[in-house]
Amino acid sequence: MKRRQLVKTTTLGVAAATTASVAACTGASSPVAEGGAEDLPRIDWQMATSWPAALDTILGGAQTFADRVSAMSGGQFTISPRSAGEIAPPLEVLNVVSQGAVPCGHTASYYYVGRSPVMGFGASLPFGFTPQQQNAWLYEGGGLDKLQEFYARQFNVIQFPAGNTGAQMGGWFRREIASVSDLAGLKMRIPGLGGQVMSKLGVTVQTLPGGEIFQALQTGAIDAAEWVGPYDDEKLGLNKVAQYYYYPGWWEPGSTLEVQINLDQWNQLPEVYQQIVRTAAFEANLEMLSRYETRNNEALQRLVDGGVQLREYSAEIMTAAQEATFDLYDEFAASDADFKAIYDDWRGFRDRIYAWSQLNQGAFERFVYSNLKAGGEPPA
Amino acid sequence: MKRRQLVKTTTLGVAAATTASVAACTGASSPVAEGGAEDLPRIDWQMATSWPAALDTILGGAQTFADRVSAMSGGQFTISPRSAGEIAPPLEVLNVVSQGAVPCGHTASYYYVGRSPVMGFGASLPFGFTPQQQNAWLYEGGGLDKLQEFYARQFNVIQFPAGNTGAQMGGWFRREIASVSDLAGLKMRIPGLGGQVMSKLGVTVQTLPGGEIFQALQTGAIDAAEWVGPYDDEKLGLNKVAQYYYYPGWWEPGSTLEVQINLDQWNQLPEVYQQIVRTAAFEANLEMLSRYETRNNEALQRLVDGGVQLREYSAEIMTAAQEATFDLYDEFAASDADFKAIYDDWRGFRDRIYAWSQLNQGAFERFVYSNLKAGGEPPA
Repeated sequence: MKRRQLVKTTTLGVAAATTASVAACTGASSPVAEGGAEDLPRIDWQMATSWPAALDTILGGAQTFADRVSAMSGGQFTISPRSAGEIAPPLEVLNVVSQGAVPCGHTASYYYVGRSPVMGFGASLPFGFTPQQQNAWLYEGGGLDKLQEFYARQFNVIQFPAGNTGAQMGGWFRREIASVSDLAGLKMRIPGLGGQVMSKLGVTVQTLPGGEIFQALQTGAIDAAEWVGPYDDEKLGLNKVAQYYYYPGWWEPGSTLEVQINLDQWNQLPEVYQQIVRTAAFEANLEMLSRYETRNNEALQRLVDGGVQLREYSAEIMTAAQEATFDLYDEFAASDADFKAIYDDWRGFRDRIYAWSQLNQGAFERFVYSNLKAGGEPPA
Repeated sequence: MKRRQLVKTTTLGVAAATTASVAACTGASSPVAEGGAEDLPRIDWQMATSWPAALDTILGGAQTFADRVSAMSGGQFTISPRSAGEIAPPLEVLNVVSQGAVPCGHTASYYYVGRSPVMGFGASLPFGFTPQQQNAWLYEGGGLDKLQEFYARQFNVIQFPAGNTGAQMGGWFRREIASVSDLAGLKMRIPGLGGQVMSKLGVTVQTLPGGEIFQALQTGAIDAAEWVGPYDDEKLGLNKVAQYYYYPGWWEPGSTLEVQINLDQWNQLPEVYQQIVRTAAFEANLEMLSRYETRNNEALQRLVDGGVQLREYSAEIMTAAQEATFDLYDEFAASDADFKAIYDDWRGFRDRIYAWSQLNQGAFERFVYSNLKAGGEPPA
């Protein structure tokens, strides 16, 4: 019922946004010299997002992106992020951008793994990369080039990383989950490939937008859910409807969010605006991660003080999940050439970057951590 | 001898650069509307850097910044990074920018801890932050605001993070260093606060620019040196003049490099150019880190294949270094109010963010790492 209403509202919103966008683009009265900074046209875009209005981290990342585009274009190119459902259903951002109904969006690629398992790579893969590794693969390991080729071919869309949640938590449960057998039959909200792994472990998986999780948990429509981490989860009130909070979120060790732009709209942008969009997305990417990393600890402390029971996934669950994960990748690779091509590259990159990360930065962190735990530092 | 020549060349370079810069700025014929994208002036800046021309990672970060500024201004605002010694001595970038002899620079703040220990915070502090934590503190923890206030007051300079080397390695030694007693009397190139900690451990410390390390090690003027990590160190040829390569680089777990701009020059920039500079620096920051993370493992493999002996610092050295580090911070805090104000904040932030990082992302990484070591994953 609620979902249907959302779609109806949205359709009207999309129509309005499309008109505004086309009007803005045709408002560019004269052709623009390639790379020239003069006579840049006024462009106003609506941006569909998957994010509830309450989340200043993740919807905030879309806003950071928009603010930077505006600031660097002297206010000539404005983008207005709209929260989930305002102009498009939260899990259909790619679709409306692909169709050109909205010029651009901010979303997570893995909401669209139903269209291709390749869509996992752009956000996060279970047992995949930390944020630092994910950025390295995207920007310098050839990952973004490969994914952009795929998006252009499949969706007529170009996308840029424009946010990262950091390593996510392992979700909220109404009872303790000590072993794999406790997962059997559990109804859990978990999207993307993480959901497919959970399904292999016996979970009945649902993909719901962030804004609908609280109610689903409250009414008992689901038994468990994951969203992002302490700061966001507290804002969504998930601690009020489930008591056990697990870590780590092995299915999302560093999720990238992205700006998606319809390719026809992109190709009409002056070169300078394209350059501004590219770089504004870098700032949104780094800024969002910094915000999550800064705020999550204080939120976690509040949650624990409020009675939330913190639990680490057992080694049995972690090991079973990892096995199911690599089985799933092998199945995709056997049946999907696009997935296989990117996965082979991703997997080799993973082995190399883990070797480096864990040797050096890992050695440092393990020392500091063991020291902090042992009380080996002077008090702050 | 070589150093003196460098300074002489430089002085001429600075004079030339200053003239060019002033000419470019006065070339702005008409006043620019605040925030307007039209009639933006042509500006061409020289940029002094601390980096040898051979290093496409770190000098490359300065170039990324410059390229993005040019691209987003439609080629109207150009910045030309010059390698170490071309227009300023490598360890005097802050000084020439502060004096206005060169409008901007790209350097590491800790080269200037001789002027104030506060200058450690902008780059990296021993036993301080990983790159992700450092960015969180700078962008969202109030760190950059505090440091910008200090730079403006002390140096008439504004700075922006514009690169990160990732966690650095622990340096090159001509013989094994098993315990603290092996450090006594050792002559080592290590700048910043890391050098001051090493000094407490008995090392005779030198600060040399990157381009002079190879010769100093080769001639025996020094016994040990650290630069950055495998990819850069290999390019500088350090593996040819020392055999033992230690990790982790506990004095630089995630060093930020920065763009420094003379405040008078900054204040003359149109608002749009200021906004472009801010955001271009974000891209340079993330792009450089991604490059290092991508390239270091392959370089490390080549080094090890070529006979380099990889060694982990002993727990005795790590523990002694950490104690000496916090002693040093206490000494600074007791005698320097600027240091104390920032340190108190930094230290609290550190405790909070480590608690979060190590609980969740750390739990994930420890699982993956132990599994990789045990061969518990299917082969790539």
